Amino acid sequence: MQDILDLKIKTWNNGVVEEKIDSVINEYMLRVFINGTELVSMICTPKNLKELVIGFLFSESIISEIDEIEEVNIEEENGIAYVSLYRQEKFEYNGDNINIKRTVTTSCGSSRTISYSLADADIKIDKNNKIMEYNKIISLMVEFNKKSEMFVKTGGVHSSALSDGDNILMFEEDIGRHNAIDKIVGRALLEKIKLDDKIILTSGRISTEILKKILRNYIPVIISKSAPTSAAINLAVNSNLTLVGFARGRKMNIYSNFEKFKE
Amino acid sequence: MQDILDLKIKTWNNGVVEEKIDSVINEYMLRVFINGTELVSMICTPKNLKELVIGFLFSESIISEIDEIEEVNIEEENGIAYVSLYRQEKFEYNGDNINIKRTVTTSCGSSRTISYSLADADIKIDKNNKIMEYNKIISLMVEFNKKSEMFVKTGGVHSSALSDGDNILMFEEDIGRHNAIDKIVGRALLEKIKLDDKIILTSGRISTEILKKILRNYIPVIISKSAPTSAAINLAVNSNLTLVGFARGRKMNIYSNFEKFKE
Repeated sequence: MQDILDLKIKTWNNGVVEEKIDSVINEYMLRVFINGTELVSMICTPKNLKELVIGFLFSESIISEIDEIEEVNIEEENGIAYVSLYRQEKFEYNGDNINIKRTVTTSCGSSRTISYSLADADIKIDKNNKIMEYNKIISLMVEFNKKSEMFVKTGGVHSSALSDGDNILMFEEDIGRHNAIDKIVGRALLEKIKLDDKIILTSGRISTEILKKILRNYIPVIISKSAPTSAAINLAVNSNLTLVGFARGRKMNIYSNFEKFKE
Repeated sequence: MQDILDLKIKTWNNGVVEEKIDSVINEYMLRVFINGTELVSMICTPKNLKELVIGFLFSESIISEIDEIEEVNIEEENGIAYVSLYRQEKFEYNGDNINIKRTVTTSCGSSRTISYSLADADIKIDKNNKIMEYNKIISLMVEFNKKSEMFVKTGGVHSSALSDGDNILMFEEDIGRHNAIDKIVGRALLEKIKLDDKIILTSGRISTEILKKILRNYIPVIISKSAPTSAAINLAVNSNLTLVGFARGRKMNIYSNFEKFKE
């Protein structure tokens, strides 16, 4: 299984647009079965999966030593890890016997039972969504960076903002990048602000979980200072969502809806 | 509730050691009750908590519009949010009715029911743990940065490494910063490598969840390129764990075990 995928993207560098092949990190889902029961789904990078599963079982106190494991069998193509423990305990999701019964995400927010592919799109953004101007994006990101007070002070938080394409309407910070977006959504709900014509700006990496929050609100555009994952790019393409990454200085990468951009 | 706390730290800047007051992000736990049932604990920044709770309920499809909420009552000092929904549904943690029944962490890894303070230490590192030399730390971080291939290619992953204080013994990368550490732990278990005299290097921010993984393995030292949270610093102090952050270039911040450092 590849941990890095090459995808076609468009770059904008101070007015110069190019089509390029870019390396993006593969976002992979591994379902972990213990003694026959599905325990958890981990969203991860498909490299050293056996080590990941064993380390996770230890960190979460499911095992206290390696010798409790009879076998770990990883089916990489199917995204499944079968673990046999010597003890015959049956693992169940009742929240009392064991304390992991969720999808272990890169930064939380998804559910345990994901029966679809990471990049499946339930929600489609209207094809006539926002046209984006490169220079508008640059000025929005300049304003966004100026607002990141807490980050400047502590270096420890993620920021998110809501924009109408011209100005920043709301700005939120949190230790968790999902939380920063949830705060924006919560405030928009409280203030009865329509989201399906807005833009989200974020400091954090873009995984499918982040995009699902955006799609649930039919927000047509997301712009990040950081990298997207392969599955997030595929999900954006499948759902007509405009995805911009690495928007830093006078540069950005465009991963979907290439035709929606103009000078 | 303060979202930023001022704590006493020690800085090392190219040979010059100073004591300073530094701003660190407050890591806060909010327990969310819906119609009287505890649904989830969120680890977050204590600012705009009402917006966070509402946005989260919407993102997780617990509500589909704001008018389903009768009341949100936040007890900030106690870290509790009481939500009343108009519908009389009883929320339970059975994993079928609702799909959130875990601690929503900044980056996953902890359990739903945390009855202790974030900074309580169950595990204490031996007081006679490793003495650290500033210049050794700098050279380890130089080596660590050189190894971050996937990050250089994709900008999308976190790295962790295991060191004996002189060399890097293992290096792992993953989309999730917890996963990168779990891979190290898993490999150490597989290779029967003792961890209680080693050092963990990481690219990611340090929250209590990360430290708990480190403490479970009795690893005495963690060094990060990024920021720690306030609760992580308190946990490090309470458990005698040596915590270094912002180790970049020829600079670093020291948050605990000040006396364990020498030129």
